[in-house]
Amino acid sequence: MGQFRHQESIIVVIDIFRATTSMCVAIDRGARSLIPVVSVEECQAYKEQGFLAAAERNGEMVPGFDFGNSPYSYLEADLKGKDIAITTTNGTRAIDISKGAIDIVIGSFANISVLSKYLIDRNENIILLCSGWKDRINLEDTLYAGAMVRNLRKWFRPQEDAALVAEAFFQRASIRKRYYIRNSSHTKRLIHLNIQKDVKYCLQQDTHPVIPILRDGRLVKLV
Amino acid sequence: MGQFRHQESIIVVIDIFRATTSMCVAIDRGARSLIPVVSVEECQAYKEQGFLAAAERNGEMVPGFDFGNSPYSYLEADLKGKDIAITTTNGTRAIDISKGAIDIVIGSFANISVLSKYLIDRNENIILLCSGWKDRINLEDTLYAGAMVRNLRKWFRPQEDAALVAEAFFQRASIRKRYYIRNSSHTKRLIHLNIQKDVKYCLQQDTHPVIPILRDGRLVKLV
Repeated sequence: MGQFRHQESIIVVIDIFRATTSMCVAIDRGARSLIPVVSVEECQAYKEQGFLAAAERNGEMVPGFDFGNSPYSYLEADLKGKDIAITTTNGTRAIDISKGAIDIVIGSFANISVLSKYLIDRNENIILLCSGWKDRINLEDTLYAGAMVRNLRKWFRPQEDAALVAEAFFQRASIRKRYYIRNSSHTKRLIHLNIQKDVKYCLQQDTHPVIPILRDGRLVKLV
Repeated sequence: MGQFRHQESIIVVIDIFRATTSMCVAIDRGARSLIPVVSVEECQAYKEQGFLAAAERNGEMVPGFDFGNSPYSYLEADLKGKDIAITTTNGTRAIDISKGAIDIVIGSFANISVLSKYLIDRNENIILLCSGWKDRINLEDTLYAGAMVRNLRKWFRPQEDAALVAEAFFQRASIRKRYYIRNSSHTKRLIHLNIQKDVKYCLQQDTHPVIPILRDGRLVKLV
């Protein structure tokens, strides 16, 4: 038993609504790199140097930036070869605290199958890092973590009770997925912001089968 | 949506294996009060003043104290009218951080029905505070929180995704309770310490239908 040290693990950063989903979209649509930064100020500094820049706080795009946190914004823009600085309420902070891991990869339903296969092939310890919302558990990240635990079950043994709870939650929620998603706190926030279609998009599986991976502080396409 | 301020809520402190279960046992068996203290040193100071004293760290009784954290130790001793100072790895710390709540009560399977009824009657906001293990989620506290969410469902609306996750976990785990408990990290720790019978005892429902409540820094019997 016991905790993995993050230096001895691959960390999967999870922020389903919507940061890590949008990252998969952006990389799949040809962005050369995403530069995750913790503060809006840092992101602004990149923008002033001529980078594209995405900033979200409390679910909304920070005024003056090119993108917020919606996957649709990345679906519509021309991203080929572009480098995009990005900061979000929870997702980019999760990337920041993961530094020092063997590898940091981005997980979302959009890339769940290709990522599962990659993790099985790598055969290292795995930490599924749910960003949550401002230090609290949320349904959608827990659901995804549970789905990953299921996918990896034959090859890995869960070491944390949190993994077993997430797995059981996924199994229960698969029967009543709509009910749970409709009742999640984050969905309620997003519905308030009029972006239900983002929720739907973020729950689709394997729409963007790429693996964004952190290399020299930037997320780039692994496969 | 949003978080309850703990000043506006009743907090149920949960540490199923084994602190809050043992507290119910001790109060039910006639202890006049339990004095939760955070450090072993404070607990020792009470002992030197002539109090009975219980100290547990990392699952084991600290040498020189009257009790550890096993419900059986309280089942066998004469507790009538006694005041007992008590410190445990996680449970007493959870009580400490709850200070300021409308009321702080102790939850365990041993008092789940009487406590559910009490909370419904009080009709205040409720925070189910799972102690976990050294800041990590554990199965048994999550299971209990989920059971409480079910019990309170008709009267209260869950405000946190964590409550929905716990509820779904409880529903899933009720079908395969043994599997989950056997695979929990804490059970593995306890089995290593040769105290499986504690685990079994802590999962029995309504064996000690009392409500320990904090009054002037001491846990006393409410009903």
